[in-house]
This record gives sequence, C-alpha cells and structure tokens, in this order.
Amino acid sequence: MERFSKEITLEKRNKHIGDACTLFFKHDPLKITKASKQYMYDEKDNAYLDCINNVCHVGHCHPYVVEAGYEQMKTLNTNSRFLHDNLVMLAERLTSTLPEGLNTVYFTNSGSEATDLAIRLANHHTHGSEQITLDHAYHGHVISALDISPYKLGTCTDGIHTHSENIHIVPCPDIYRGKYRDCDYPEDNMAHLYANEVKAVIDKLKKEKKQVSMFIAESMQSCAGQVIFPEGYLQKVYKYVHDAGGICIADEVQVGFGRAGSHFWTFQTQDVIPDIVTIGKPMGNGHPVAAVITTKDISMSFKNSGMEYFNTYGGNPVSCAIALAVMDVIEEEKLQENALTTGKYWVAQLNEIKKQFPIIGDVRGLGLFIGIDLVKDRETREPASAEAKHVIARMKEEFIILSTDGPHCNIIKMKPPMCFTKENVDLVCQKLVMVLKEIQDKNINSNANSVISGKKERHSDSDDSGVSVNGHHGFVNGQEYVAVHTGESDSVTVVK
Amino acid sequence: MERFSKEITLEKRNKHIGDACTLFFKHDPLKITKASKQYMYDEKDNAYLDCINNVCHVGHCHPYVVEAGYEQMKTLNTNSRFLHDNLVMLAERLTSTLPEGLNTVYFTNSGSEATDLAIRLANHHTHGSEQITLDHAYHGHVISALDISPYKLGTCTDGIHTHSENIHIVPCPDIYRGKYRDCDYPEDNMAHLYANEVKAVIDKLKKEKKQVSMFIAESMQSCAGQVIFPEGYLQKVYKYVHDAGGICIADEVQVGFGRAGSHFWTFQTQDVIPDIVTIGKPMGNGHPVAAVITTKDISMSFKNSGMEYFNTYGGNPVSCAIALAVMDVIEEEKLQENALTTGKYWVAQLNEIKKQFPIIGDVRGLGLFIGIDLVKDRETREPASAEAKHVIARMKEEFIILSTDGPHCNIIKMKPPMCFTKENVDLVCQKLVMVLKEIQDKNINSNANSVISGKKERHSDSDDSGVSVNGHHGFVNGQEYVAVHTGESDSVTVVK
Repeated sequence: MERFSKEITLEKRNKHIGDACTLFFKHDPLKITKASKQYMYDEKDNAYLDCINNVCHVGHCHPYVVEAGYEQMKTLNTNSRFLHDNLVMLAERLTSTLPEGLNTVYFTNSGSEATDLAIRLANHHTHGSEQITLDHAYHGHVISALDISPYKLGTCTDGIHTHSENIHIVPCPDIYRGKYRDCDYPEDNMAHLYANEVKAVIDKLKKEKKQVSMFIAESMQSCAGQVIFPEGYLQKVYKYVHDAGGICIADEVQVGFGRAGSHFWTFQTQDVIPDIVTIGKPMGNGHPVAAVITTKDISMSFKNSGMEYFNTYGGNPVSCAIALAVMDVIEEEKLQENALTTGKYWVAQLNEIKKQFPIIGDVRGLGLFIGIDLVKDRETREPASAEAKHVIARMKEEFIILSTDGPHCNIIKMKPPMCFTKENVDLVCQKLVMVLKEIQDKNINSNANSVISGKKERHSDSDDSGVSVNGHHGFVNGQEYVAVHTGESDSVTVVK
Repeated sequence: MERFSKEITLEKRNKHIGDACTLFFKHDPLKITKASKQYMYDEKDNAYLDCINNVCHVGHCHPYVVEAGYEQMKTLNTNSRFLHDNLVMLAERLTSTLPEGLNTVYFTNSGSEATDLAIRLANHHTHGSEQITLDHAYHGHVISALDISPYKLGTCTDGIHTHSENIHIVPCPDIYRGKYRDCDYPEDNMAHLYANEVKAVIDKLKKEKKQVSMFIAESMQSCAGQVIFPEGYLQKVYKYVHDAGGICIADEVQVGFGRAGSHFWTFQTQDVIPDIVTIGKPMGNGHPVAAVITTKDISMSFKNSGMEYFNTYGGNPVSCAIALAVMDVIEEEKLQENALTTGKYWVAQLNEIKKQFPIIGDVRGLGLFIGIDLVKDRETREPASAEAKHVIARMKEEFIILSTDGPHCNIIKMKPPMCFTKENVDLVCQKLVMVLKEIQDKNINSNANSVISGKKERHSDSDDSGVSVNGHHGFVNGQEYVAVHTGESDSVTVVK
C-alpha cells in the first residue's frame, strides 16, 4: 500500500530521517512495498530477486512466522520478569542446538545489544579488559561494539571515535586478499600464520601484565568481504586465548541458524566450542530479537557482579514466539539442507563462470554465504571496485538485488533468504554472465576512462551493506554521468 | 495457553535463563499468560490490576495496535535502506509533536540503543566528552548507558564496571529526600540550589579546560523514586549547559507520550527545549521500537563524522506501523487527557489517605506517574523500606501489581497503562488503606521486630523494577520466615 509517490517519500525522508542514515542505490533508491519468500516488490509491482536480505532468513513475511507473532501479540506481550513458557521454550530450543556447556541464555533486541552484553560478561568473568578483534570486523552500532569494529571506525574522519588502547586489531584471516595470501604461502600454513598474529598480541599483553578479556570474531566474516577462515584457524586462536585466561566469543549474528549449510552454527565448521555465542538477525526473520548464550560459570560471574540484567523487551513472549516459529520453519522446510545444496551448486556455477571471466579473482562460500572477489588483474589481485559497483547497478536493472562489501568494496556479496532455489541461482548466473560480458566488451571497445571507472563508495555497515550505486549513473574522472546503454536492449531495461 | 505447569516453567527458567535476570516477586513469581487493557491474568485466570507496566501504554494487547502490526508483518518487514512510507510517516508524526527545531529522527530498537546514539551525537557535535548525569539515574543497559546510570552501577560490587572520569554525577533534584529538602530551604529556592550543582561541575570543567558534551536527565526521574523536578530546574540547568557549549538530552523513554497528562512530552512541563530527545518503551506498546530525535545541525555533525548509521531493525515498516497505531490510539481514546484527570484524582485520593496514615511522608505525581514516599517518621523522613516491601507483597495478594523504587526502595511507584480509570484508582486506594491499617495495627500490637521489618531488596533496573518481594515471606533479624496472617481473613486471601 503506497501512501505517497516515491518522490514524496524521498522528499519526506530527506527532511526528517537522520542524515547519517543512507539508502541502497542512493541515486535511484528502491521503494519496496511488499515482499514474499525471496522476492521484493517495488511500488510499480516489479519483482526483484533478493540475494542479500539474510535477516528475512526463512523468506520474507513467512506466513507461519507472521501468524505465530500475531497470535502472541493478541494474547500477551510483556517483560521477562514474569514467568512465561515461550521464554523457557526458546531458551531450551536454542541451547539444544549448541554444545553442552552453552546452556544459559540472555535475550536482547539486536545483535548490537548482544555484542555489548558479551563484552560485559567477558570483562566480569575474566577481570580483564583487553579485547582482540579482527581487522574489517563489524559487531554492531553501539559504542562498545563500534570499539571492536574496525570496519566502521575506519570511516570516522572527525577523530571523535577511535579504537581505545585496550582494543587490539589482528589481521583478518583472508587467504585471498589478507596479510598472508595463498599465492605466497602454502595453504596449509595459513591458519598457523594468522593465528600467530593473535598469539603475538597475547604475548605482548602478558609482558605488559595485562589480562585478556576476550577474542571476538564472526565465524565467517561478512563485512570484510565474505571471508571463510582457513581450516584450523579458530582452533589455534581459541587455544591461545584460553591459555591466557581469556574468553572466546563467536559472533553468529549474521552467519548462524543454518546458513553455513553443513552445520547449524558456523563455528562448528571450525570444530571449536566458544565460551559465548551472540545471535540475532535471522532469529526473528525481521522482528527485533537477539540473544547471548554462554556457560553457567560465566553467567554466574556476571550475576555475582551484583548487577541485575534487565532488558525491557528482551525475551518478551512475542519475540520468543516468532523466534520459535523461525526455528520450526528452518527444520520443517529443511532450509539448512537447502543452504548446503543450493550454496554448493551456486559456488560451482560461479566457478564455471570464473573460467570465462578473468575479472573474477576468487569465488568462495559456505552454504548460502557466498562472495565473488572481482580483480583488475589475477596476478596482482588489484581490486576491481568500480566494476563491482557497476555489476551491482546493472543487476538491479535486471531486477536482481546484490551488494558489494570488503575494504575495497570489490566483493559481490550473496546471502539470500534460505529458501533460495537452484532456479534462482541459474537466473543470477545468467544475468551475471551477461553483465560481465558487457564489461568485458566495453573495456575492449572503450578508452582508459571506461564506463566502469567509479568513485569508491561503501555503506560502512553491517549485513545489508555495500549497495550504494546507481544503475544509470557512473563516474568518469570524478565527474558523474548518466550511462547510455546501447545495443543489448534486452539487457538494459530501465527499472525506474 | 500454558504449556508447562508454573513449577516446570520456573525450573526450566532457572536452568536456562541468565542468572543475572530476576523475577518480580521472586519467592513466588507471577506466571502471566494473557493480558488486556490494564489487567494481567495468571495461569489460573486470576485478574491482576496492573499499576506498573508503562510499556503497554495504550493497554495490553490493544487490538488496533495488534492489527496494525499484523497487517504490516504480512506485507513487508525489511530495513530502512529501502524507501518506505511508514518510516517517513512516523518521523513526520513524531516531529509534529515536538518544538520546531527537533525535526530529525534516528530509529532504534530500545531506549538503551537510543541513549547510546544520543551520546554519540552529542560527542560528535560538541567535540567534548564530559557527561553530566543525575544521581540515581537510569538510562539503559548497554555499557555507554550504564556509565551514566548511577542507579545501576551503584550495585556493581566486583569493581569491574565503574563510572569513568568523564562522567559527572550531580544530585537528583528530589526536594523531599534529596540533598536540599523543602523542610530546610524555601521551596522557591530549590531549582536554584540543585541547578547550581550542575553549574559547579561546569565551572570546574572550564577550569580544567575540558569541554562538556552533554547533560542528560529523564524529564521526571523514575528509578530515583518518581521524582518531579522543582519548577524552573531544567531551565536553569539547560542555560548553564548551553552556555558551556554542551548539549541537553531529555530522556523521555519512560515519561513521554502523554504520561504527564498536561503535556505530550514531560520536558514541556519544565518549559525547555532540549537538543536531543530519546523516546522508547510506550512507543511500541511492548514492541521493540525507540528513537532519537534531534536538530538538523546535530544530525549533520554526526553525518560529517563520516560514519553511516545503520540499525538493522531500526525503523522497519512493522515497528513504524505499530508506533503509528499507538499514536492513533493515544489521540482517539484521549489517553493524555485521561492521564491528567485520573492522575489528579489519584493524587488527591492519596493525599486524603496520607491524612490518616503518618507512614505516608509524601505523595507526588504528574499525570499517571505517581509516587508515595513511605517513612518511619515524618520529621526525620527515615525511609520505611521494609514497610514498602510489605505493602507491595500484600497488594499482590489483593490482585494489585505495584512496585517500589528509589535508593531506599521505599517509594511505592505507579505508572499504569494509560487507560487506567477512576474506578481502578478507587480499588487501589481502598486496598491500600486496608494494608496500611494492617501495618499500623501490627506495629501497635507487636514488638519491635515487627512483621514489617525486612531485608532491603531492589531490582536495580529501569522501569518495571522494584518488586522483589514475597507476599508470604519476611525477615526478622535477618532470618527469613513465613508470615502467618491471623484474623482479617478477607484481607489475606492467598493467591498462590
């Protein structure tokens, strides 16, 4: 239901919504009025294939989830200081998916709140304050979470918010584009090399007689550019941290709930047991619900700090009913299994496409969490940032929503609702081939100031980030222009 | 709908829910299975009159709000990087209730997230980091909010989380029980005396060449014990802060949306214009939605920091639909007007009761935000904490839910859903008289170790706090006992 024309909505938004909030495709944003499964519809009823909204995990507006929420909303929605079955059922259900010791749950409203609470738990348990985080990590938008989010603080230019001295940033274990690359070192040495960076920080802290509080990492790193850790990495790191008396936090806010396909939680693919797990986004299929799960010991240390934990909405009966319904759907519709098979198929198809297009430097993925690293040159691995931006813009014209991410914004990022099908994959691949072919042809036919050159732009944020492009605009030598697509008329359908 | 017996629910909760989370009436907690308007129902269908749940502002499970949420949940629930009418409609509606300059909105999921963002906005705008907060204040559960919440950090006993050096705590302007009391100073001097405490901090900071970032206060202070500020207090404070280049933040998370009766926002009762307003709890009638509203200038300073603000669920179409529906109901059912008349009636009735019972030291309130300060002695104002606890426990037996708060837990706190009626007030007052009479009689008839003596207990937290009592248990000389009520059999109905 549209109340205003798109122009009016945009005008009102510019007038009243915080200036630091940005839009996808900001020069020609999408107005989405409805959604279902893996499809979003604009005000003209155009259907877009959604490859990026991992939050709507079991599919947009899943009726089973919606009805569960509705039933509970009609009955009771209050806080967790009253006994309620939904709260304990959800806690029981969540802990049943986790290793034995992870049996105690604190509910929050967002991944950011979960990160903040995890930091508090770690500090009270270890009596330490030194925190180790990965470069390019993003763990949330509250101050404490930003402190351990180089991805975000790296964009702060007024000098007001910087990493404090107790935050230690170690290289992201990206074997394609990180500090140690698979082209320079044997692949089976990667985990060792990257884990040693954590060890070096811990050794330094020991010398300085400082106590490590915690190490935190997403179990696959999203904002860093869909980075899959080398085998054995977290095992080695967790051992170093534990030996130093620290806590290991697995951030599963984006990558949990079966997305990895092979396992329900992505840390399980690294064969480790964290001390704290933070979960969120997919948990409520769009409804604000998140949680921190930890051991009894850590929970008791927190209780013994004397401070009660109360979160007004955290663990309310409606949020819990919705999260329980999401878990039902994952199970009943075998969405984890789908993530595994569809994800494998997608990566295989992309690797086929890679053979035709040298611009594709790397294809990587676990389940329905996939990245394509675009390069100007496969030898130097110079990031093809402008090209990535162009791909996203053109794919939008083809009614496919993708995004870019990574420090160079050159990674095409895919993390669709978990009901994504092989047919959806085929469509994305077909359109991708078409767009990459356009780029290849244009690069051959045009001069150095190719249509593809572009200003680097990124949404310095979280999951749904990176798409800040315009299907019809580009930049030549810093000057914005409107692209004129010629030929291939079937491929330049103008959405607007 | 009950899935487990109350005992099983409690057992599962003890097993799986974070140990730092506590229950109301923890020795005999309430299991609430449904709620409607100002009534909550336990698993045996007993109806309780709810005098404390300010979150369910327009009444528990209001059908108009529930249907609005349901309709939107069925249609679309996605993030604010896509254009949507609900987002701009809510922003427009909210800003229309505020002074002209407060025209820019950032949406969050909770009051805690709102406080955190308000701090960030203030720091980036002023380039200062010194924060001034009131004693006994509570502004949220994330680390940055706890830093300015003496109410909560005061309970931390392990020394891990303390106020950092940039936090400056000034006395709460409680004219009955604070640093300056109406019995010692002329009442028209109170605002001056308390505001001077802020000035003293600012003067000290100036000497130290430190820049004030912000002053934050709830516009009436809830956790401090339902404190209503003396007339002119915020005007004087805001002037001092503004003159020093600082930002004034009005925390309306608990007290906004018409609760004060005379005005929609409680800061308006003090005739001031804040630079930032944080709102939350009542906004979603239980659904997690909150916001920060500020000026264009401050918003632009934040944008110019280079950091995008993105909050995954913040401002999603469902949260906005629900908040819009809440605002509709407030208007259509004239709930602000009801808060004014019912609140005035309640305070008048309580003042009548005060005449009969010397234990009532003070009755204060604005709209449906009312406190009763219980004292052992009207001269010394010694807090009657155990008696307050007993009142709460006995009222629960009478199917009335109240809570205590304040640094001595001796304030009976009332902040019910806004549909509360005069008949509800009459019932509460009638039962209160009965319970106070019991206390009076017992104190006369028993020895010094009266049935009323009790261990001080409090929920060191937020809005719905303070009820940590048991109708049937008490403490004599530190030993727990089970109270045996004799006689007055009509008044000792055992709910359990």
